Amino acid sequence: MARGRRPTEEVREDVLAAAGALLLREGMAGFTIERVAAESGASKVTIYKLWPSKGALALEGYFRTVEPVLAFPDTGDLARDLAEQLHAFVRLLTDTPAGPVVRGLIAEAQRDPVLLAAYLERYSGPRRRLAVDRIEAGRRAGQVRADVDAESVVDQLWGACYHRLLVPDQPLDGTFADQLLGNVLRGITPR
Amino acid sequence: MARGRRPTEEVREDVLAAAGALLLREGMAGFTIERVAAESGASKVTIYKLWPSKGALALEGYFRTVEPVLAFPDTGDLARDLAEQLHAFVRLLTDTPAGPVVRGLIAEAQRDPVLLAAYLERYSGPRRRLAVDRIEAGRRAGQVRADVDAESVVDQLWGACYHRLLVPDQPLDGTFADQLLGNVLRGITPR
Repeated sequence: MARGRRPTEEVREDVLAAAGALLLREGMAGFTIERVAAESGASKVTIYKLWPSKGALALEGYFRTVEPVLAFPDTGDLARDLAEQLHAFVRLLTDTPAGPVVRGLIAEAQRDPVLLAAYLERYSGPRRRLAVDRIEAGRRAGQVRADVDAESVVDQLWGACYHRLLVPDQPLDGTFADQLLGNVLRGITPR
Repeated sequence: MARGRRPTEEVREDVLAAAGALLLREGMAGFTIERVAAESGASKVTIYKLWPSKGALALEGYFRTVEPVLAFPDTGDLARDLAEQLHAFVRLLTDTPAGPVVRGLIAEAQRDPVLLAAYLERYSGPRRRLAVDRIEAGRRAGQVRADVDAESVVDQLWGACYHRLLVPDQPLDGTFADQLLGNVLRGITPR
């Protein structure tokens, strides 16, 4: 079969694209290796050779697919760039099946240490790094105080959104994103 | 049996105390209605009459047991009171089985809408209220700006800790608690 001779990297990209699209269209409930195989044109055997489990493939496909949506702009204005990215992130979680997918992945990871390690290494860790890098660039531009720990800011912007996703006492929306940014940029005490 | 004649409220309190103690000692893995019955002196039939499920009993027992640990002081100094409570909260999550218990409850709640509703109504909702009330008292004392939304502050202090509990890319500890407070009280931008 001609298909078998395609370079592995090309097959890998096709499978990830198909996996991510399927996941965001139907959520984990509709996500099977069979369907990814059918939609990517790769064989199930090939897919099982490249990924250790369905969860690992789903995670990587998800990461690959949402990556462009969650890119960090750098216009030189930290407040504006954080706002743009945080609003895109909230829309992804609320307007697409990404919300239920991420809820399911984080829940499953509490019981499955292998999935948790993969989630940290392949998804949350690299995404934190992009945010920390943007905040550090802001610090170099004089927009963030020298004593601020950038990692903790990540938990107060994106982490706070994950908290509302998982424990929905209050709405996760654009208003919330703006409140988070206002609190952390200006502080809540009188200036 | 003399025991059967005790007022329901008294039995209820004994069962909740036993359930909370068992849960914090052994986690969900060791938590059974049989053991709660044995340790509280109530019958399994009585327990099943008072709670719809093992999860509901665990949740309420947990809430009752951690309530005094998580009380909100009001000394008039908002920064100090938030710090004291937030540090106690972090210690509870990291130094006792409360961490794994809460991870398990939140994970299970993503798949079980009845548990999620109970968690919001009986645990996270009332706890948010205590925090919001303390922040509003701080606002009346001139320690919080008029335009700040107190609910979003809750997600940036306690929610950020839940985020590190569930997605442990970075440590959940006292240093983190202080960073969260510093960011949100003073803001991260130069004053």
